[in-house]
Parts: sequence; structure tokens; C-alpha cells
Amino acid sequence: MSFIQRCTQAWSIRSSMLCVGLDPEPSRYPKEFQSRHSHEATEAFCKGIIQATASYACAFKPQIAHFAAIGAEAVLERLSQWFKTEYPDHLWILDAKRGDIGSTAQHYATEAFQRYRADAVTLSPYMGTDSLEPFLGYGDKGIFLLCRTSNPGGDDLQMQTLQSGERVFEHIARIAAHRWNTHGQTGLVVGATYPAELARVRAIAPTLPLLIPGIGAQGGDLQATVAAAVTPTGGIFVNSSRVILYASAGTDWQMAAAQEARNTQTALQQAAASLDAPRA
Amino acid sequence: MSFIQRCTQAWSIRSSMLCVGLDPEPSRYPKEFQSRHSHEATEAFCKGIIQATASYACAFKPQIAHFAAIGAEAVLERLSQWFKTEYPDHLWILDAKRGDIGSTAQHYATEAFQRYRADAVTLSPYMGTDSLEPFLGYGDKGIFLLCRTSNPGGDDLQMQTLQSGERVFEHIARIAAHRWNTHGQTGLVVGATYPAELARVRAIAPTLPLLIPGIGAQGGDLQATVAAAVTPTGGIFVNSSRVILYASAGTDWQMAAAQEARNTQTALQQAAASLDAPRA
Repeated sequence: MSFIQRCTQAWSIRSSMLCVGLDPEPSRYPKEFQSRHSHEATEAFCKGIIQATASYACAFKPQIAHFAAIGAEAVLERLSQWFKTEYPDHLWILDAKRGDIGSTAQHYATEAFQRYRADAVTLSPYMGTDSLEPFLGYGDKGIFLLCRTSNPGGDDLQMQTLQSGERVFEHIARIAAHRWNTHGQTGLVVGATYPAELARVRAIAPTLPLLIPGIGAQGGDLQATVAAAVTPTGGIFVNSSRVILYASAGTDWQMAAAQEARNTQTALQQAAASLDAPRA
Repeated sequence: MSFIQRCTQAWSIRSSMLCVGLDPEPSRYPKEFQSRHSHEATEAFCKGIIQATASYACAFKPQIAHFAAIGAEAVLERLSQWFKTEYPDHLWILDAKRGDIGSTAQHYATEAFQRYRADAVTLSPYMGTDSLEPFLGYGDKGIFLLCRTSNPGGDDLQMQTLQSGERVFEHIARIAAHRWNTHGQTGLVVGATYPAELARVRAIAPTLPLLIPGIGAQGGDLQATVAAAVTPTGGIFVNSSRVILYASAGTDWQMAAAQEARNTQTALQQAAASLDAPRA
């Protein structure tokens, strides 16, 4: 099954376009974890969040820096193995934003797809085609390329206009939709904070799966996001991290996380239903 | 001491512009390591290479993917601690090409500068200013931003021409030299495989330290590289990895590595001396 088919299946089975981002911050864990070692607490907290929210999400996105900063690679390994066994239909998207060439890119692909069992990984497009090929060599795996990111600094390069009239993010979207998408493996990262650019990306790349951070804590508008980018099969993974993870620090943390996830899933479904375009 | 002062000191003390890249590939280790566990072998091999070549190098550049792919983060941690104790005047440049925002970038900075004790880290500029700020917050540390990379795929984005007439890599070099270099912390990664573009970067950024991969196995010309980019104080870290690391798989591996490092250091010094411009 190709990666795009796996995406379509994930959107359909779960009736969800919600991706829950796993950005573990030990200082923000529920009180019951505060006395435990940070590695043990991180593993238990992430598992608890996944168990509480899996019914409302089609994907989970572990952010690797949060594990690397505390030396918790082994936790992410165990979590990955457990997740792929327990939730085979959900997608596991490793947010690593890697980018390198040759044997180094091959090692990063090994890290993402073998060590952490990711279904997809986020990558930077700055180094171009030969930095992506080692990842595309895994035929059933996906890549999400940074395109128009949710932060203001994204303007420094992504919003520059080329002589062709295209802006840099549009140029990346166009190559991604054609030259870099020979086997339905390629998606793009586009922030919810810029709905007009999100709509431009969707126009350039009508069928590419989009990973969309920036709703919730970063302030992106959910309704505008769906209107700009949803497709008949789903088409988008709308990421939410902190609002769900840290919904409560009390004993009700799992219930609060589930509630936030369900609210977001429902809001996404309603936003899609309210559009004129019929959805499958 | 600022990062640029530390660079100048490193070039001066060692009379060298050679950076030895640590890209450990267990299958290529000398025969005496082949029966040992890959982690133990990696640590012993990297230490042996550093001991053999430190007299000829001003910097070492561990490539993190090579450690991550085999789950050897603990090896890199121990190696980093040992290196900074044994070789305080040499620079330790973590080649990670990270790039993210907010709390995530903060965690990557923790990983590079605290966990792995790096003096500098390589970063992707794709996400712009706010993705660099958490790294620049470490006042005595450096960042090397990808600018014009040594691989052909770099053309896909870096060689695109903007409406201003600048190419993307020139645009990055210009911002790096000004807005992103308020405290002498910023350098650029420019491949030796494109000496004309290397000279352009040097013209735009006359004082920035340049990290230059691509000589040796990738075929970049050493003489042309020095001519394009050297400055009166040094100005460049010319990286060589595989040619030095895997100079011999026999019992003479350290001697062979030392010989390759010395040859490269000498060639760099001679190339600099042959230029009309006087060097300090």
C-alpha cells in the first residue's frame, strides 16, 4: 500500500483529520508524574495521552528534539514499537526536519523509518533532490517537506519572490507535487497561521497530504484552515500538541486531553461538512 | 570570548584550517575493530582518529546521523565530554542541520550545546530568524547555516534567482552576514564543489567563518577553495572525513589517518601561502 493510500485509509477509518503532536515537556506533566524519573514519566505520559486520544485522531507526531534534549531516545524507541503494535491503522509521523545528503541522509532514513518505525518523517527541502532520495527509497513510507511554516521568520526565505514570479514556498510546493512525488510518498508542511498561502499550496498541489501545525497555541484559525485545504478524502493532518497534552495537570489529565482531542476532531468535521464541496 | 574569536584562535594555535569530519561507518572500521560491539568500536575508533590527527586539525565535526542510526547517542556524549577535556583549543562542531521553532529549537540547542558540548552546530536557514534565535541565545557558541551545499540537488532551491537579482544562496549569505550576525556567532556552510559560488559568498560575507565540505571524496579542488575563501586570519574550516577516517583498514590505520591529515593541512597552508594576499 502506498503512503497516500495509507493516509486515505487513516482519514477514513478514524473519521478524523486530527494529528496529536507529542512534545513532551517534563515540567508540564501532571502532578502525579512529578516525582518520577523524567524518562519513565515521559514514556508513561505519552502512552497515556495516546490511549486517551487515539479514538479522535488519525495520526500522532512525536517531536524528536523533546526526547533528544533529555537523552530519551530509548523512550522514543520503546514508544514507537508499542504504538505500531497497538495502533497499526494510525500514522506515526516523526517530526525531525532532517536534511542531508548521501550516506548521511541514508542514516537519517534508518533512524526515522527503522529505529523509530515512522510511517513518515518531516524534512527540510533546502538541499534538494538528492537529499530526499534515500527517504523515497522506502517505497511505502512518506515524507513531509517544510513548505510554508507557521512562524513569522518563515518570511525570510519562504516568502521571497523568484524571477519566475513564484514565491519560494510555491516553488517548493510545485516541485514536491511533481518531481518529488513519483510514488505518492510526498506531502508538505504548511502552517495554519497563513490561510491564504495554505490555499495557494492546495491549488498548486491538489492531492498532496498536508501536515498543518499552528492551530491552538499558535493561534491559527481552524475553520479557515479546513476551508483552504481539505479534499474529498481528507487531505490534511491538522496538528495540535500543547492544548491537548497539557489540558490539565490534575488527576483528570487523560479525560481533559480526550475532551480537547474530541472537540478538535468534531470542529474539523463540522468545518468540512459546512463547505459546499461534498466529502466522501 | 566570542565564537569568531575562538575560531581565530583555533586557526592560529594549530596553524591549520583542517576540520576532520567524524562520520563513523562500522563496516569500514579497521580490521581490529570488526569483532567488537559497534558502540564500543565507534568510541575507540573516533578517539583513535582524533588522537592521530589533532596535531594537524583545528576542528572536529561529528556527524550526528551516523551515531543516531546505530543508537549510539551515549557514545557521542562520552566522546564529547572527553574531547572538550583533552582538546580545549580545538573546536567541536556538531553537524546536525537542525531547524525548528520556539520550544523545539530550544530543545535542539540544549541537545547541541549542553548534551554534546558543541562549540558550534550546523543549521538549516529555511525557517528563518526565529528558528535561529534560541541558538544565538548561547552567546559564546556558533552556528553554521547551510548556504550553498556541495551536492547537485542544491540547485533545486539554492540556485534559484530572486526578483532582486540575487540567487537564494546569496540572499541567505547576505542576511547571515548582517541581521543574523550581531555577536560574531554566525558562519556558513558552502561546498568546495562550487568555487565560483564560494567566491560569491566570500564577497558578500567577508568576515564570516565558512565550513567547507566537499574536498576529498566529493572531488572539490583544494587550491581553488582556498583561493576563493581564505582570509588573513584563516576564515575557513575545510572539512575532510572519509579520506582520513578510512585511509587504511590495517594495523597502520592511525598512522595512515595522520598522514592524510598532515597532507591536507600542508596543502591548505601552501595554497594560502601561494596567494598574493599576505596572511597573518
